[in-house]
Amino acid sequence: ASTITLGDKEQHDNKETVASGGGAAAGGEKEKEVVSYWGVPQSKVVKEDGTQWKWNCFRPWETYQADLSIDLKKHHVPKTFLDKFAYWTVKSLRLPTDIFFQRRYGCRAMMLETVAAVPGMVGGMLLHCKSLRRFEHSGGWIKALLEEAENERMHLMTFMEVAKPKWYERALVFTVQGIFFNAYFLAYLASPKLAHRITGYLEEEAIHSYTEFLKELDKGNIENVKAPAIAIDYWRLPADSTLRDVVMVVRADEAHHRDVNHFASDIHYQGLELKDSPAPIGYH
Amino acid sequence: ASTITLGDKEQHDNKETVASGGGAAAGGEKEKEVVSYWGVPQSKVVKEDGTQWKWNCFRPWETYQADLSIDLKKHHVPKTFLDKFAYWTVKSLRLPTDIFFQRRYGCRAMMLETVAAVPGMVGGMLLHCKSLRRFEHSGGWIKALLEEAENERMHLMTFMEVAKPKWYERALVFTVQGIFFNAYFLAYLASPKLAHRITGYLEEEAIHSYTEFLKELDKGNIENVKAPAIAIDYWRLPADSTLRDVVMVVRADEAHHRDVNHFASDIHYQGLELKDSPAPIGYH
Ligand SMILES: [Fe+2]
Ligand SMILES: [Fe+2]
Ligand SMILES: [Fe+2]
Ligand SMILES: [Fe+2]
Repeated sequence: ASTITLGDKEQHDNKETVASGGGAAAGGEKEKEVVSYWGVPQSKVVKEDGTQWKWNCFRPWETYQADLSIDLKKHHVPKTFLDKFAYWTVKSLRLPTDIFFQRRYGCRAMMLETVAAVPGMVGGMLLHCKSLRRFEHSGGWIKALLEEAENERMHLMTFMEVAKPKWYERALVFTVQGIFFNAYFLAYLASPKLAHRITGYLEEEAIHSYTEFLKELDKGNIENVKAPAIAIDYWRLPADSTLRDVVMVVRADEAHHRDVNHFASDIHYQGLELKDSPAPIGYH
Repeated sequence: ASTITLGDKEQHDNKETVASGGGAAAGGEKEKEVVSYWGVPQSKVVKEDGTQWKWNCFRPWETYQADLSIDLKKHHVPKTFLDKFAYWTVKSLRLPTDIFFQRRYGCRAMMLETVAAVPGMVGGMLLHCKSLRRFEHSGGWIKALLEEAENERMHLMTFMEVAKPKWYERALVFTVQGIFFNAYFLAYLASPKLAHRITGYLEEEAIHSYTEFLKELDKGNIENVKAPAIAIDYWRLPADSTLRDVVMVVRADEAHHRDVNHFASDIHYQGLELKDSPAPIGYH
């Protein structure tokens, strides 16, 4: 984006230059360059092909290579009371969701990703605070969980390009986030074992719902549009990829989250803490 | 660490192998390999010299190259009421801190880093939730603030190796974190402009306190011991580095945080949101 300097402005006794970018960049990220006293530079990243990197939210080295060979059918059979509680909690959330969205899988994906990005953030934040409080290493789990949250948020940024939220959907997300964030926060404080198991089962449902999405795409009930630009850069997809390719890699991500969260719960089941077992960083 | 397989164990109808590492690795990270049904691999990273990478909390590509040329004297002159409120809040916290720690700068550094890692996490988490709720890009600020939190946590992991917390210090950290986390959370919700300004001033105080630390080291009042192994790997310091070298790079980090947080506050002062100005990711 070309940059037009709006003029110099004296502020706080220090010279500050405010420059405003020439309109919105791709993906809804507005480019306004604020050159301040603090001289904090914007990191300009160039793509392999010499063009400027468009995304501020992820860099070329933070992109994903989807592993489509991951087993989509793996399931944790609930045995203990805690497992069954986690399983039925998730199952009981499924019914109202199915009724609300029916076959609108694009909309469903977008809405559910706003919820899916919560557990990783809550877990990462609580482990961070715990590490500080106890003067203890985290074994990389803070990073692993925050990575998961960021990956889920990128799912949302992708589906946003395909389905636009309506005002009442925005209102719903607002309410659901308020409830889910707090519920998951309390669950994680009370029992990380339960919290990770719940997330594991949520991911199993996510895999199922993306499989249904693919079926609808194949039947032609949902139009197989061109993949959004952000998805092509994030998952390093070929330029001519379609929505179907995007759903495939998103579903693979969900399968990875399922593994990580059931695994985290298993660690707790074995009487260990997460920090006792090095985290699978970069296991997408 | 060599790995001793403890035996196979049937669990949840699935084969799980629990293996336990041969004692604690450097830096207090215990290596217990939990091989579960979920087949989540531990990422094994090898250092340039061929030895195994010791740290689970950061990888070779996440290490820092300290920029010691950063201006340590920069200061934001408070002009508005909000700035003055932020300034005097921080200044009033300084007095009890000075009285409590006196000249024990090692201990002071360790204790204060448990607090310093909170603002980045709170800010990052709130921006993450906001991005989800509003279906908006973050301009990279979530990552930038979480990076800051992680850097502060690494300061703690470093000073932990030099000064060991006593039980009443642990109790104090517990209480202070409870108060500070919630206070900063509310401040950030009410006014990110104020919250970032407060952090900016906290960082200015941190620079001052590390400068005093250096003076005591130079006077010989504090012994200039060998740098902890974790610090040598994290900041890529020469193998014969000392505590003085570590304090130098930590102080440079604080100066970078000062810049980023005052800059973030400036963005809000200009009537913009953080997402409108791309974040300085990787600006340490
Ligand atoms: Fe997702
Ligand atoms: Fe997921
Ligand atoms: Fe620090
Ligand atoms: Fe700092």
